[in-house]
Amino acid sequence: MLKLIPKIRPRRPTRSYAAVLAPRNESYAKVMQSDLLAFENFLGKDAVQKDDITNHTTDWTGQFKGHGSVVLYPKNTEDVSAILAYCSRNKIAVVPQGGNTGLVGGSIPVHDEVVLSMNKINKQFTFDDTMGILQCDAGFILEDLDNKLSKLGYMMPFDLGAKGSCQIGGNIATCAGGIRLIRYGSLHAHLLGLTVVLPDEQGSVLHLGSAIRKDNTSLHTPHLFLGSEGQLGVITSVTMTAVPRPKSVQSAMLGVESFKKCCEILKMAKSSLSEVLSSFEFLDEAIMECLKVNLDLHPVLNKSTPFSILVETSGSNEDHDMEKMSAFLEECYSKQLIVDGVLAGSSADATKMWKLRESAPLAVTRDGYVYKHDVSLPLESYYELTNVMKERCGDLAKRVVTYGHLGDGNTHLNITSAKKNEELENLMYPFLYEWVVAHGGSISAEHGIGQLKLPYSTLGKESEERLLTKKLKNIFDPNAILNPYKMI
Amino acid sequence: MLKLIPKIRPRRPTRSYAAVLAPRNESYAKVMQSDLLAFENFLGKDAVQKDDITNHTTDWTGQFKGHGSVVLYPKNTEDVSAILAYCSRNKIAVVPQGGNTGLVGGSIPVHDEVVLSMNKINKQFTFDDTMGILQCDAGFILEDLDNKLSKLGYMMPFDLGAKGSCQIGGNIATCAGGIRLIRYGSLHAHLLGLTVVLPDEQGSVLHLGSAIRKDNTSLHTPHLFLGSEGQLGVITSVTMTAVPRPKSVQSAMLGVESFKKCCEILKMAKSSLSEVLSSFEFLDEAIMECLKVNLDLHPVLNKSTPFSILVETSGSNEDHDMEKMSAFLEECYSKQLIVDGVLAGSSADATKMWKLRESAPLAVTRDGYVYKHDVSLPLESYYELTNVMKERCGDLAKRVVTYGHLGDGNTHLNITSAKKNEELENLMYPFLYEWVVAHGGSISAEHGIGQLKLPYSTLGKESEERLLTKKLKNIFDPNAILNPYKMI
Repeated sequence: MLKLIPKIRPRRPTRSYAAVLAPRNESYAKVMQSDLLAFENFLGKDAVQKDDITNHTTDWTGQFKGHGSVVLYPKNTEDVSAILAYCSRNKIAVVPQGGNTGLVGGSIPVHDEVVLSMNKINKQFTFDDTMGILQCDAGFILEDLDNKLSKLGYMMPFDLGAKGSCQIGGNIATCAGGIRLIRYGSLHAHLLGLTVVLPDEQGSVLHLGSAIRKDNTSLHTPHLFLGSEGQLGVITSVTMTAVPRPKSVQSAMLGVESFKKCCEILKMAKSSLSEVLSSFEFLDEAIMECLKVNLDLHPVLNKSTPFSILVETSGSNEDHDMEKMSAFLEECYSKQLIVDGVLAGSSADATKMWKLRESAPLAVTRDGYVYKHDVSLPLESYYELTNVMKERCGDLAKRVVTYGHLGDGNTHLNITSAKKNEELENLMYPFLYEWVVAHGGSISAEHGIGQLKLPYSTLGKESEERLLTKKLKNIFDPNAILNPYKMI
Repeated sequence: MLKLIPKIRPRRPTRSYAAVLAPRNESYAKVMQSDLLAFENFLGKDAVQKDDITNHTTDWTGQFKGHGSVVLYPKNTEDVSAILAYCSRNKIAVVPQGGNTGLVGGSIPVHDEVVLSMNKINKQFTFDDTMGILQCDAGFILEDLDNKLSKLGYMMPFDLGAKGSCQIGGNIATCAGGIRLIRYGSLHAHLLGLTVVLPDEQGSVLHLGSAIRKDNTSLHTPHLFLGSEGQLGVITSVTMTAVPRPKSVQSAMLGVESFKKCCEILKMAKSSLSEVLSSFEFLDEAIMECLKVNLDLHPVLNKSTPFSILVETSGSNEDHDMEKMSAFLEECYSKQLIVDGVLAGSSADATKMWKLRESAPLAVTRDGYVYKHDVSLPLESYYELTNVMKERCGDLAKRVVTYGHLGDGNTHLNITSAKKNEELENLMYPFLYEWVVAHGGSISAEHGIGQLKLPYSTLGKESEERLLTKKLKNIFDPNAILNPYKMI
């Protein structure tokens, strides 16, 4: 494996990451009674919620709490335009919010920003089942879209734990990843067009891109909204491709003795399983132990090994896929890359395997307090991070466990302790993120920056790039009212 | 098939498209002897070419001719930075040029712009064969990259006729499409990072994105360069994913009696061939006749049908792929979707099939003068355009033929005549492009705007979007020196 850039930047002297969140920017207007009346006037009374709004000002983990006083429920693009025009003219800060399933506080107000909920923009849905092109309102829940497509032989090209609550608009705004990126690519592979409303004084409505697969007639501006975390504009409609729904899904669990072998297996899977490979997930011994102790979930393999790999294929022909998977397993054995391996013989078997991977986030929470991480690393450093952190945290950590999307280089390293522990935190941060950047990784693979990673968001970023993103932000949001105090 | 947006905009009164290309902007400096000396000074004498430069100021079709007086050959990013800083400070217009294989004159100077050739920036190449991530200089030729990857079990995720000359930087700048987009997606699916030099007074060098598959720590700015046609900055290095090289490639030719059936076959192919489907190409009877008459290339099918479909699968297991392809052909017969079908039994057979498709662009040139088109349309209008144009052009056209990437909705409608014919042109334009836009299509699917389509580039674009692209251009190129008189 050739080593890729890792332009390892010189370690800077330890910086101060203290200024976690900016104080309220007093140039933003406070929402007054007259504003609420104006909102009611142009949206209707039922679209303005003033009481019981904590489930919109707090994230589902309870980690982030804003204290906005109002949630607005636009019903369509025009309502969003009216809201943003009003707020821009009156310099009222706004935070757009989809399913509120994020893990970094990106859709939660920091201070008293107005929450613009997309919950009611979920009516328009069209699908071209020859070209596989979907066009829908941004407030649709991912799972609902997938169910609709299922009846037409298609599926959404990504899948993640929050699918029952997250919305497609939020998925675009965060460039959601998930467990099948290795097969279907990131959302960049599928995005064709967006309707967005800009937070300018006109609440400009822009139709960007188109509903065709090839269109080279202008800058490809929709892609700038992928991962923009609600800081450029509010997405109200999405046009994207879906993928044919697989008719056969096979899963296998492999027991592996070294991390190096995990990487060799990945390389082999890409070559042997090739077009049917749809997931390549990773669990270490520590998370397996955590699943057993905290959730009474037991390994499906007989032998305990330092690493487990969960491989999934998705294809159109069960016989072919089973044959490919069997040949792959045999190759793994014959090359002595695995010491144990099980091919799911039934959907119950597969469910048991996936339950282990999918329950990992829950298992760690039972330890007490969890320091969750979502970072990307070149494979040569992927598991080294776990070892480094294990040694660094020593007895202060109750557990240091790792699971993740090995096929994408995305690791979810979790460090638990009985309760929040400042000494442990000081050992971990900023060290962990500096280490990741120094090793050519990303401090946020798929969760984004939001509030959680704001202190570290400039790590490894060059000043030219930061300046560019600021200039871009300024074009879209000249009064800087949209989702302030965050990434840009 | 649900009808997608085609927001059919009201037909405007016929507009004037007369102002094809802008006159020289006299605010640009003319290149003087002192400038040439300065270039030689910081690039070296061998990097400044003043004589015999017509192959850089003229495109390969001979359709576009500029009259620049100098071609610069930077050797690396630093050279590009020095050039752009100098030209920005001195307000000298610059046109970046890759392999000069475009079809719309995008990399050809309009007036006397300095040509910045990427031909010598082709040294750096690294590849991570576990993650499938490629990082290389922008001047590498596509085929050379593909050959390098071939030895490592991978391939470039796109393929096009010009692969022997086109460069990866130009492919990114034009968001090249080609024959396998249906399988591997557009270049958005693969782009991870870019090094770009901005045409500002510092010649700012930006490292955008990263060399990992998942990175959500900033705006995804690399994607803004896909399809930017050299108007935002000069790409000097590309980081992207490659795909596992298929071990088995199968081809089949189908004879179809109606266009509706072609669409049904496409839908079936997506479901039945699913993960192995890699091309779905289209040829009508008129192009088949043209191939026969002009190139003595004969159909591979026994029966002559109004439409021919060329289907390709790429997979990892020949037996499986042949079985899928056979079952697919049987299904086509049993559903009476085809009247004839041949599965290539050898690579010679496959070559014969592909020769038909690949020779189509050459075949039309033998008619005399060719009016080439590259448009996308929703499938319900895909072939209607051909019929409409056939009727409209009548006897003025020698031939109206269509081939293209049906799987992507991309049609290459070609209209030939013995020689350039103004009467025919007036019948075709602006009618054809207005028709495409009115039917929800794109006037440029994969060739871009360049000089050729500039008069029509605003068709169907809303003023808000055009304003946005102008603002974006201004951020990247504040002195507007990069590739002027074109798209933005």
